[in-house]
Amino acid sequence: MSNQFTRLLEVVRAKKPLVHHITNYVTVNDCANITLAIGASPIMADAVEEAGDIAAISSAVVLNIGTLNERTVQSMIVAGARANEKGVPVVFDPVGAGASTLRNSVAMRILQQVKVSVIRGNISEILFVSGLTSNTKGVDASETDAEYDAEQIASDLASKLGCVVAITGKVDTVSNGKRTVLIANGHGALSSITGTGCMCSSLVASFCGAAPESCFDGAVAALLCMGIAGEIAHEKAGQFGSASYRIAVMDAISLMNQGLVEGRAKLHETSC
Amino acid sequence: MSNQFTRLLEVVRAKKPLVHHITNYVTVNDCANITLAIGASPIMADAVEEAGDIAAISSAVVLNIGTLNERTVQSMIVAGARANEKGVPVVFDPVGAGASTLRNSVAMRILQQVKVSVIRGNISEILFVSGLTSNTKGVDASETDAEYDAEQIASDLASKLGCVVAITGKVDTVSNGKRTVLIANGHGALSSITGTGCMCSSLVASFCGAAPESCFDGAVAALLCMGIAGEIAHEKAGQFGSASYRIAVMDAISLMNQGLVEGRAKLHETSC
Amino acid sequence: MSNQFTRLLEVVRAKKPLVHHITNYVTVNDCANITLAIGASPIMADAVEEAGDIAAISSAVVLNIGTLNERTVQSMIVAGARANEKGVPVVFDPVGAGASTLRNSVAMRILQQVKVSVIRGNISEILFVSGLTSNTKGVDASETDAEYDAEQIASDLASKLGCVVAITGKVDTVSNGKRTVLIANGHGALSSITGTGCMCSSLVASFCGAAPESCFDGAVAALLCMGIAGEIAHEKAGQFGSASYRIAVMDAISLMNQGLVEGRAKLHETSC
Repeated sequence: MSNQFTRLLEVVRAKKPLVHHITNYVTVNDCANITLAIGASPIMADAVEEAGDIAAISSAVVLNIGTLNERTVQSMIVAGARANEKGVPVVFDPVGAGASTLRNSVAMRILQQVKVSVIRGNISEILFVSGLTSNTKGVDASETDAEYDAEQIASDLASKLGCVVAITGKVDTVSNGKRTVLIANGHGALSSITGTGCMCSSLVASFCGAAPESCFDGAVAALLCMGIAGEIAHEKAGQFGSASYRIAVMDAISLMNQGLVEGRAKLHETSC
Repeated sequence: MSNQFTRLLEVVRAKKPLVHHITNYVTVNDCANITLAIGASPIMADAVEEAGDIAAISSAVVLNIGTLNERTVQSMIVAGARANEKGVPVVFDPVGAGASTLRNSVAMRILQQVKVSVIRGNISEILFVSGLTSNTKGVDASETDAEYDAEQIASDLASKLGCVVAITGKVDTVSNGKRTVLIANGHGALSSITGTGCMCSSLVASFCGAAPESCFDGAVAALLCMGIAGEIAHEKAGQFGSASYRIAVMDAISLMNQGLVEGRAKLHETSC
Repeated sequence: MSNQFTRLLEVVRAKKPLVHHITNYVTVNDCANITLAIGASPIMADAVEEAGDIAAISSAVVLNIGTLNERTVQSMIVAGARANEKGVPVVFDPVGAGASTLRNSVAMRILQQVKVSVIRGNISEILFVSGLTSNTKGVDASETDAEYDAEQIASDLASKLGCVVAITGKVDTVSNGKRTVLIANGHGALSSITGTGCMCSSLVASFCGAAPESCFDGAVAALLCMGIAGEIAHEKAGQFGSASYRIAVMDAISLMNQGLVEGRAKLHETSC
């Protein structure tokens, strides 16, 4: 089954799509480097005067509200709208949705004004976006929320919004409302470093930029790559500490290839 | 003596306190990663519309003026005030105080409007905050200032403001006005990488968030961990260059444990 | 020939010049660390209320428009003007010039209002600044633009603006309008990580800050160091992936010495 997804890795590397990010300043360097590592090309531009222009020349746009402010939210709306006009896929990462009134209202505003192709978040964030009660504590998923039925929630939200929903966690869930795929790759050590969620969104956008007609497949491929990189990194550097592990994750993404992904993929398609 | 301090490391790891940072964009990724590495959970949020909300759900707040601007200073005041209301400890890092009129006035304004639990800076910054003449050149301590009597200055400022004062340098000094502890751990290589001061403040806040009733002990524990990590990193990676050293510092924090700290701690309590 | 340039490395390390950056938030941490690694001292400060004050106490100023916005552009103009008054060299990095109307107009505005000592960019950016048509796609040089005659373009722009122009690429070109030097060091892997252009600008500024009377020599020395670091890093870590390579580049800068640079320098002075 995995070939449908893994073939896209070579497409990213062949097309080198330009991925416009309006994102937080905490993990932005990691996002730029992982975009390069997977084979795409990052550009970060958040001035409202150019956000639309840059979105228009890009192959995908990431809107990440990790350190949102009034100025950048406006730019996100402009970039998203322009991307919609041009048919450029938009990946939305509702970082910390549920943690403050501002994030909640901005997340809703973006979803009202921008047609997104993929939403990627942890279970707490996606619960909030779904209009369900979440127990978000900061930017990490709460343990209580982890007991929710991610498959159902992803599928319902995907159907409601007509987009792909990717919930990352111990097992990742990707749904377009019709099909739902579970990815059992990854390693707990990924939560010991900052930015793995943001980097997943950059990877998803890299795949969507390379194959905009296949955002569902691209989201699966992106999360497969990240999960497998997390495993390889743990094998290579897990015992050396969190910074060595972080380097090893990025290294593994840069060295990822289709055979490696197919050999390690733990995919399961559900029929919900 | 060190057990009083080192026991707190396990408290951080057990409680995983949420540490809200309003900090500079230069070292923010390092701050997030070191907060995770010590066992706490970072959140960065500087929009004035949410700074108070996030502070209210956090266990500690870091205010770091490294790349301050009008917008974020306002957010710092709001977050600090809300933290005060909620009894959440505030760690203030007056990066570059003394280097510009803006930084000077903002540092003073924060100290007037926010009750801080800990101030952490280099000798030049703390001299300025103390109302003494400093010779700050940028964000690093000036060599002339290093000749000041850090113990006396820390103790006096701590008494004056009713908080803990931590001066980092070749020897670190932590005082609450009554007790003053010197920490002779660390390595000169720490000054070859950016962000070690900011990371110290994040560590201090992680400890204060886990044990808000013990901010003095927490500040000592945090600086012990950083100093020892600097030593371990030098032993492991000192000869490989500054970036490898930086990775090794973070690795060492993530692998730190109470026994390691107690075995290496070079603590001295003065009676000034 | 190389001694004229390489001798400056020891000058940087002896003088430890303060280098003020108003730069993008994507690569700012890398810029700070490479400034330290080469032996200078970084300070980042972009509030308009302090940009002039900080520029005035600095030895060099970097203006980098990678993630420009209205607020920081104003600060760049203020810092640049104050640096000009004080005789502090200004290094301008027109990141992404040509990619949006905003970047184009800001690049022109800075060059009209600030006398810069060095402009450092890729061929697409420098073509745009030269008033020629470029095919910029985002922040990386377009392949079409790579066919232009970099020597002629650098020399013409240097003469027109009365400054040093440095075009980085497969071969780097540095011209002051009278002399033009080509540097054939470097490695293709440098384009697999973000920030190498920005880091080059920080290195150029570090050298210019240490020897403001020799900005041409300093620019050559800086690009030599980066190119050679790129080669050494590839030898050491090329096969481990992009993040390990990135660490190795920074390590190599921190361990660079005059003998190493002279032994590896591939310099060629043209007579255009």
